[in-house]
Amino acid sequence: MNLYGDTRSGNCYKIKLLSSLLDLRLVWIGIDIMAGDTREEDFLGRNPNGKIPLLELDDGRFLAESNAILHYLAEGSDWLPTDRFESAKVLQWQYFEQYSHEPYIAVARFINLYLGLPDDKRAEYEAKQASGHRALEVMERQLVSTPFLIGLHPTIADISLYAYTHVAHEGGFDLSGYPGIRAWLARIAALPGYQAMGED
Amino acid sequence: MNLYGDTRSGNCYKIKLLSSLLDLRLVWIGIDIMAGDTREEDFLGRNPNGKIPLLELDDGRFLAESNAILHYLAEGSDWLPTDRFESAKVLQWQYFEQYSHEPYIAVARFINLYLGLPDDKRAEYEAKQASGHRALEVMERQLVSTPFLIGLHPTIADISLYAYTHVAHEGGFDLSGYPGIRAWLARIAALPGYQAMGED
Repeated sequence: MNLYGDTRSGNCYKIKLLSSLLDLRLVWIGIDIMAGDTREEDFLGRNPNGKIPLLELDDGRFLAESNAILHYLAEGSDWLPTDRFESAKVLQWQYFEQYSHEPYIAVARFINLYLGLPDDKRAEYEAKQASGHRALEVMERQLVSTPFLIGLHPTIADISLYAYTHVAHEGGFDLSGYPGIRAWLARIAALPGYQAMGED
Repeated sequence: MNLYGDTRSGNCYKIKLLSSLLDLRLVWIGIDIMAGDTREEDFLGRNPNGKIPLLELDDGRFLAESNAILHYLAEGSDWLPTDRFESAKVLQWQYFEQYSHEPYIAVARFINLYLGLPDDKRAEYEAKQASGHRALEVMERQLVSTPFLIGLHPTIADISLYAYTHVAHEGGFDLSGYPGIRAWLARIAALPGYQAMGED
């Protein structure tokens, strides 16, 4: 299987981290968002929505959206609960990530790290801070009562939220007021097979 | 089971439509977003993220996020494929909906319909139009080749995208240039058990 991705992207790192934890072999095909690779005709033929990560199966079929790819790759493993309520809870946290966390924490990081916090983006960057902290507070409330988001064991919901939370400082978010989140980040980084962001 | 929702919300309508198609009995508990109901302490105790729809199971457990609730309710029915790739494709379209469709089409509708398109929101409203049309083009590309998003049969991915697409005109989106989408909207409205938005 091939994975089209950018090593600086947290959404792509989700797939890299799960592959490493599950010891899956994926061929990484480098895509440079900033150079416009995802708007090229060739790429849009593979994913009309023009986004990475994008998984290409051995039979040539394509699957987009980081959290959908995590589900596909995790099926049958301990990372995806089979209990009906628990598997729905995994989805709840992953939709929370895409709607209430990523648009603030990842986008603030993008403006700061990729764009270099230009003056004409400063107001947008500042506007992301309050909503990002609201998302962190929702996570903190859960993580002071259970070691992982769904309970006692890590799932792909933890991978989804780990990706941008562990680099939230690059978007200007100070995690010192979130002891539950910090302990959880350390638990994930200590898992066998863990791979850091940007590593090959 | 209880469903906390607002009848004007497309995210809540997703649950109402699936319940009607599957003939499920849910007790509807009316929540008024504009009156601040989702920011009340009582409600935040049920869902710390302060959003609807919210499902309450008979044993008192809660499940948030419209697409996670659809998965929970559809399990074991024809609306959720069991094939590994097809079920991941359902998720792909639902994440597309939450990240690339809803933030433009639903938010433009919210500004227009709920807020009455005030002058200080007009720039934001206008900025939503191009991205909303990009999302509609991605859907159109699929729907000119298959009758439903995943293929020959309707799934919860269709319900997720139907909710705000069928009222996209309320956000200023003209669907006359999307014949594939218009035929698909008609196919869904013709399904046995279909219920219109806002109906009891």
